[in-house]
Amino acid sequence: MKAEILATGDEIRSGTLVDSNSAHISEKLEENGVEVVRHTCVGDDLSMLTSTLREIGQRVNVCVVTGGLGPTTDDRSAEAAAKAAGLELVENEEALANVESFFKKFKRPMTESNRKQAFLPVGAKILFNPVGTAPGFAVSIKGCRFFFLPGVPYEMKRMLADHVIPDLLAIQGDAALHSRVKTITTFGLPESLAGEKSAGVEAAFPGVQLGLRANFPQIQVKLYGRDSDARRLEERLDEAGRWIVEKLGKHVVSQNGETMQAVIGQMLLTQSATLALAESCTGGLMANWLTHVAGSSGYFLFSGVTYSNRAKIDVLGVDPNTLEEHGAVHEETARQMAEGARKVAGATYGLSTSGIAGPDGGSEDKPVGTVCIGFAAPDRSYGRRLFFPFGKRLMNKKIFAMAALDILRKELMGIGEP
Amino acid sequence: MKAEILATGDEIRSGTLVDSNSAHISEKLEENGVEVVRHTCVGDDLSMLTSTLREIGQRVNVCVVTGGLGPTTDDRSAEAAAKAAGLELVENEEALANVESFFKKFKRPMTESNRKQAFLPVGAKILFNPVGTAPGFAVSIKGCRFFFLPGVPYEMKRMLADHVIPDLLAIQGDAALHSRVKTITTFGLPESLAGEKSAGVEAAFPGVQLGLRANFPQIQVKLYGRDSDARRLEERLDEAGRWIVEKLGKHVVSQNGETMQAVIGQMLLTQSATLALAESCTGGLMANWLTHVAGSSGYFLFSGVTYSNRAKIDVLGVDPNTLEEHGAVHEETARQMAEGARKVAGATYGLSTSGIAGPDGGSEDKPVGTVCIGFAAPDRSYGRRLFFPFGKRLMNKKIFAMAALDILRKELMGIGEP
Repeated sequence: MKAEILATGDEIRSGTLVDSNSAHISEKLEENGVEVVRHTCVGDDLSMLTSTLREIGQRVNVCVVTGGLGPTTDDRSAEAAAKAAGLELVENEEALANVESFFKKFKRPMTESNRKQAFLPVGAKILFNPVGTAPGFAVSIKGCRFFFLPGVPYEMKRMLADHVIPDLLAIQGDAALHSRVKTITTFGLPESLAGEKSAGVEAAFPGVQLGLRANFPQIQVKLYGRDSDARRLEERLDEAGRWIVEKLGKHVVSQNGETMQAVIGQMLLTQSATLALAESCTGGLMANWLTHVAGSSGYFLFSGVTYSNRAKIDVLGVDPNTLEEHGAVHEETARQMAEGARKVAGATYGLSTSGIAGPDGGSEDKPVGTVCIGFAAPDRSYGRRLFFPFGKRLMNKKIFAMAALDILRKELMGIGEP
Repeated sequence: MKAEILATGDEIRSGTLVDSNSAHISEKLEENGVEVVRHTCVGDDLSMLTSTLREIGQRVNVCVVTGGLGPTTDDRSAEAAAKAAGLELVENEEALANVESFFKKFKRPMTESNRKQAFLPVGAKILFNPVGTAPGFAVSIKGCRFFFLPGVPYEMKRMLADHVIPDLLAIQGDAALHSRVKTITTFGLPESLAGEKSAGVEAAFPGVQLGLRANFPQIQVKLYGRDSDARRLEERLDEAGRWIVEKLGKHVVSQNGETMQAVIGQMLLTQSATLALAESCTGGLMANWLTHVAGSSGYFLFSGVTYSNRAKIDVLGVDPNTLEEHGAVHEETARQMAEGARKVAGATYGLSTSGIAGPDGGSEDKPVGTVCIGFAAPDRSYGRRLFFPFGKRLMNKKIFAMAALDILRKELMGIGEP
């Protein structure tokens, strides 16, 4: 079964609003065995809407449309659907009851323009909206089943789950093809190299499709599969995943698409270890990532974001002579920062960054993109210098932070390279 | 001049990735007098790509395509363009030089698969990519000018600005209708209220269109205009902007769409003042935002991300009795944290957060969404308690951080409310 998605509205067409609905709908449809072949977005123009609906109706079996169900004059989805289907637009009692029930529930006055929301193509099937004023509807155009949903994301998501997915599963019956994606998070390989190393997976596992996604500074290796038997599909993708993990080795951060901070958090918890950071150039980004994880207070104790040298000395106990002699961006300074953070917070491990994110502050010896990373464990500590060629401040902050966390990850796995 | 946007890639088609490129391109094209009538997204399937390019070529004058220029086998934009245009795919010397220059600049080995990126339709115009390996290109299909750009957002944005926009302005010549957007950043008003307060602007300034965009936790008020005279347009939008600023008062963070951290940074620099933070629940997010600004080392000295009580006591000098009596989430604790950060770093101002971001850790007295914010100046300090009803950890971190920075912003403007 092939499907298309149509997003409507001048805000999306003109770029004022990013369309996140179509991605959500695609993902859910694909998970339930429907192949999404195309997304389209057009504005609120009636003839454009009508002709687009007709086009799509000729191409595929199913289409999910979002937007244009509101009470204002630029909401024209029902009108376009009626025109495209050659049906009359009539007031639908069930839809009117839906609109009225919403206003009753929230004790708000219903306006005359809300009444417009109950005018639908004759014979359309109402899709009840429990969380908003706009009822959805389903109608066939040129033999294609169209589902019209509101553009408000949480209303759309609720109605997709309540009405559209069950209908699509019923239509497919026993022939439903399950679809799954397995995501492997990697760090430290450029996309081209990750692609070359992974390339053989499609030949080794027929039916498995490979896709790479750069989620800077990480690369996600994705394996796509489709099968009528959900369990067989999971097993095949798991097997293919293990093949990829063997090829990419220590660069694999997670076999299940988890983030670096989630993987580190689980290892710290398992090892009953705690962590303190000292951040100069990353400016709090490592701490921010780590504390995105719920429960991170169980292992994350402290980060000293020490932009000034005074704070490096006073808070972290960095030796002023080291700063004097080598400067803030140096292996030994980074080592002392990591050691200092570990001690001041009473943590098992310390991790630090000191570098030059740019755009200014670089020198011939230490160009923009240079970072020194310090690591401290109870029994040893070291500093290491790395260079990244991206040149942009926010990219540098990200890759500095990820490179430091990757050093910690490898240490926690017992594959550190001191 | 009518244009369409085509996003390519299985990740977008299948919903794994939200397409934000098309919104950006639409916005820039519309700003430069080009009407965008439709967006499309298809996957990496060669025949689908080819037929979509042909379709679009028959409908409009201009199309911007993103994605599919990478080194891997699922990158097929150049091949599809050649097929759709009926041209041969040949190795392009200029493109090869672009690819090689990238690898030379960053001293990385170029792989054989990167060579594939230089195969383009014969006669295509190269669009130089200064920030990535994939050169773009322009080619005509069915009389429509197609611009092919990489899918990586910052590469795409750079090349759109460098190559596509200048070409489109040249094609339009004197007939170009300028389009501008004025963005006013606000914080602290819900979208519906910001909308109501701004609603009169279209009547007061005919030709100016109002749009609101939620960029959580900020609301951007956007004013759109179109005119053949660029200067007259700027003046009209500036006037309308001043009208909006008067209506929204202290909730206006910037009249020019600047971020909270940029506005605060400018004020600190102007006042020769410095800042230190103490962050518990925001986990480094405030420091991360502030250090996004180049030159922030001129006023930002330190953030103590003190997740553990021990770090609050040892690093910031919070009184253990206060923690014992009131707990970490309390006005007095927040006040002492701000004061402690200010003192330890020798800063003019201190700002702190301590709250419950969730999902766990809430109580009846202090539910998830509670935050205490501390502020310290040389002559006074205070703590304040706020509550936000969003319930999600990452949203809470964002709104806690933004609310704290907004208190600092108002203090720096002399309109604080202690």
